[in-house]
Amino acid sequence: MNIKLVIKLLAILTLILCAFMLIPAAMAVWFAERLALKAFIKTIVAGSFGAAMAYVLCSKKEHASSLRARDSFVFVTLSWVLASAIGALPYYLSGAIPGMADAYFETMSGFTTTGASILTDIEKMPDSLLFWRALTHWLGGMGIVVLAVAILPFLGVGGMQLIDAEAPGPSVDKLTPRIAQTAKLLWFIYIGLTICETVLLTLGGMSLFDSVIHTFATVATGGFSNKNLSVSHYNSAYIDAIVTIFMVLAGMNFSLHYKMLSGMASSAFKDVELRAYLIIFFSAAFIIAFNLYFSDYGGFANCFRYSSFQVASILTTTGSFTADYEKWPYASQFVLFILFFIGGCAGSTGGGIKVIRLVTLFKQAVNEMKNLVHPRGVFSLKVGAAVVKNSTANAIAGFFFLYIMTLLAVTFAVTLAGHDILTSFSAALTTLGNVGPGFGNIGPTENFAFFQDYVIWGLSFAMMIGRLEIYTVLVLFMSFFWKK
Amino acid sequence: MNIKLVIKLLAILTLILCAFMLIPAAMAVWFAERLALKAFIKTIVAGSFGAAMAYVLCSKKEHASSLRARDSFVFVTLSWVLASAIGALPYYLSGAIPGMADAYFETMSGFTTTGASILTDIEKMPDSLLFWRALTHWLGGMGIVVLAVAILPFLGVGGMQLIDAEAPGPSVDKLTPRIAQTAKLLWFIYIGLTICETVLLTLGGMSLFDSVIHTFATVATGGFSNKNLSVSHYNSAYIDAIVTIFMVLAGMNFSLHYKMLSGMASSAFKDVELRAYLIIFFSAAFIIAFNLYFSDYGGFANCFRYSSFQVASILTTTGSFTADYEKWPYASQFVLFILFFIGGCAGSTGGGIKVIRLVTLFKQAVNEMKNLVHPRGVFSLKVGAAVVKNSTANAIAGFFFLYIMTLLAVTFAVTLAGHDILTSFSAALTTLGNVGPGFGNIGPTENFAFFQDYVIWGLSFAMMIGRLEIYTVLVLFMSFFWKK
Repeated sequence: MNIKLVIKLLAILTLILCAFMLIPAAMAVWFAERLALKAFIKTIVAGSFGAAMAYVLCSKKEHASSLRARDSFVFVTLSWVLASAIGALPYYLSGAIPGMADAYFETMSGFTTTGASILTDIEKMPDSLLFWRALTHWLGGMGIVVLAVAILPFLGVGGMQLIDAEAPGPSVDKLTPRIAQTAKLLWFIYIGLTICETVLLTLGGMSLFDSVIHTFATVATGGFSNKNLSVSHYNSAYIDAIVTIFMVLAGMNFSLHYKMLSGMASSAFKDVELRAYLIIFFSAAFIIAFNLYFSDYGGFANCFRYSSFQVASILTTTGSFTADYEKWPYASQFVLFILFFIGGCAGSTGGGIKVIRLVTLFKQAVNEMKNLVHPRGVFSLKVGAAVVKNSTANAIAGFFFLYIMTLLAVTFAVTLAGHDILTSFSAALTTLGNVGPGFGNIGPTENFAFFQDYVIWGLSFAMMIGRLEIYTVLVLFMSFFWKK
Repeated sequence: MNIKLVIKLLAILTLILCAFMLIPAAMAVWFAERLALKAFIKTIVAGSFGAAMAYVLCSKKEHASSLRARDSFVFVTLSWVLASAIGALPYYLSGAIPGMADAYFETMSGFTTTGASILTDIEKMPDSLLFWRALTHWLGGMGIVVLAVAILPFLGVGGMQLIDAEAPGPSVDKLTPRIAQTAKLLWFIYIGLTICETVLLTLGGMSLFDSVIHTFATVATGGFSNKNLSVSHYNSAYIDAIVTIFMVLAGMNFSLHYKMLSGMASSAFKDVELRAYLIIFFSAAFIIAFNLYFSDYGGFANCFRYSSFQVASILTTTGSFTADYEKWPYASQFVLFILFFIGGCAGSTGGGIKVIRLVTLFKQAVNEMKNLVHPRGVFSLKVGAAVVKNSTANAIAGFFFLYIMTLLAVTFAVTLAGHDILTSFSAALTTLGNVGPGFGNIGPTENFAFFQDYVIWGLSFAMMIGRLEIYTVLVLFMSFFWKK
């Protein structure tokens, strides 16, 4: 274990975070929010001083190139733990969120783009803190580590390893041979989407401040709004439509956006995962729209407006809302319930199991059935044109199993605190999948404030496990990880 | 497709069923239950006449040896569909269960050893019908087809194929080289367990009739009782203990019972699945016992009495009860909830995913983590001393995925009928896993009577899919199955 290098990297990360915190600090000046400003300044000063100290102490004679697989797992996990701790300080020091457990939860929920909140009255919060809250989404969406790789050229060496540890899924295509270049491209696309949505939202009559906040919530598939009623606050079909479209865009593999921008749209649409993703989106939206229509929810267009928004919100693991889906018919609720498991595409900002994994598992299951009927046949596992390697298929199967097991374990922990099964199960599902709201006592119009502190800590941990796609965190708890 | 042979085999099966129906018919004479007697006679006469006709019509020039994989799937699936239809007639014709959907559900629930019931007052039923209800458990427990293979030597030819289609799991060890011999051995063990438990229950003061019924329910891991209060009717710690022990025995791989009887007990206890199964049983029983103890449920011995019974009942997918677990603390409820997924050992009468599959999936997931840490290492998948072939691991992964998907699909279908998510989900879980009771509106003290007819048909189908371990039934719906 190269501890010094890990600490050095964590110090750099802290410095980057503190730099970004200057933005809400400046806003606190502008809005004259004294308590928040003080809290930001304290955090920035303490954070950068500590980071600088750690950097100097650990930077003797170490080479960046000596980063190994093990170090990556430790670094990436610690980077999320640390970033959430630092990010929580402004809430806590300003007194806006009195408890550290709650402040930590809110920040982890931000960085992991979950969007679950312990706030009972969002609109009471200082604007600069609300901006910081949305900014954690935006920074976490593309990945804190990917950001570091993009900004710092010297990380290019071990960069792919780090990115793999942050999102170990069937992964981000390498757009260019150099990983730092790829990371930069991804961030350009991300910034492009951010600018487009902000402009389109202001055109719909939203204030610039609100537009930026909701854009951050959308493109990062996070869900934090600065309004208690989330997007339904604006009561505008235009805004609903824009947000729906950008949620769907944010749930796609960003390398496909790059392909489309490079004039390879037809090749992008041949992507199996994208097709499956769009099929899931449209089928779920139409099924719910019909279900609502036959339950006297108004005209079909109206039903589709609400169903498509909610489906996009949960499928992409955003968690914004325009309707209280807990009042919908049970069948509609259950379609949403299934979407909680799915999540966005690999290489998107969405969480969950991810579409490509489910497509692979589905094809494998069909292959198994073929094998039963033709015991001597040999059926290779194909997703699109590519043959999936057996090792990849095994990794996906293992992931799916661990995901379900983690889900059950987290649920059990929550029930131990005395919460009912539906609330506990959906709390586990929504944090692990980085969605945000759930069912039972944590529906879209409710919040996580009533949970005991130890449950809040546990759910913060679940959000991190989910964001780092299970393996990266769990592996640290295996005895063989720590053996020579 | 060898249709004639399939029909011939179905005819034989019908004849076997009609022969077994002579027992409750004789009881109907003894108890002077006229309506039930008439219904039994009508069924037996019509069934055997129809079967004889079909047999004669289809028995020209066909060889038993021409049974192929495809034919097995069709035959096994149809045999369960048909057996449930014939078995439902006595309920329906006697008027004891007025609707055919309900009568079919009750019979499928019997044969699949699920134990879910649509009866609102069990004790009102004629005794001969209650005996028939318990007998369906007993016949279904070891497998209708295994029974046929054991009885009819000439079925030995395609016998293993048929047994594989009925229980395609990581399977029954071949105890002896000849499959018909193995099937007979399994039945001897099964009958031995049946006799032992019946004797032990009568020693506890239970009437012989009740003892036989509860023994059938236990050794088949079914759960049908002739009392509204199930085993809690007797309010006896001795009876609870006997039933608990026999449920646990019935959930073990029967080939291990054979080993133990042959004096190879130490080798049996080295079995990985058995160990995992016992660990799960004892951990769950103790966790719940402690949870109950700290919730003022009485002394620890008392808590353990109820927790061990309920854990055994759900883990082995029996579904009998001595307590209304829906009144237990949520954490205890959720431990049971997890057990609904697990099920018994392969080669037992229990349903569910089966312990060996979960053990394999778990080991595979750990292997994947090892691979992450040591990317160049090669880790073979070992369960016990044996290395699991990649094709087996893939089949298990595919099974797990399809199980979860089928679960979600069935739940969705039930919510469409307007039932809440917890009730719908647990209805899907309990029928697919062949357990019996569930949560929500189908708790241990409730029943399935309130479901609409089309839901009842759907859940009957789910029980069959679960009993035949998903693949066997689903494969029939694949287009490639029907292609040349």
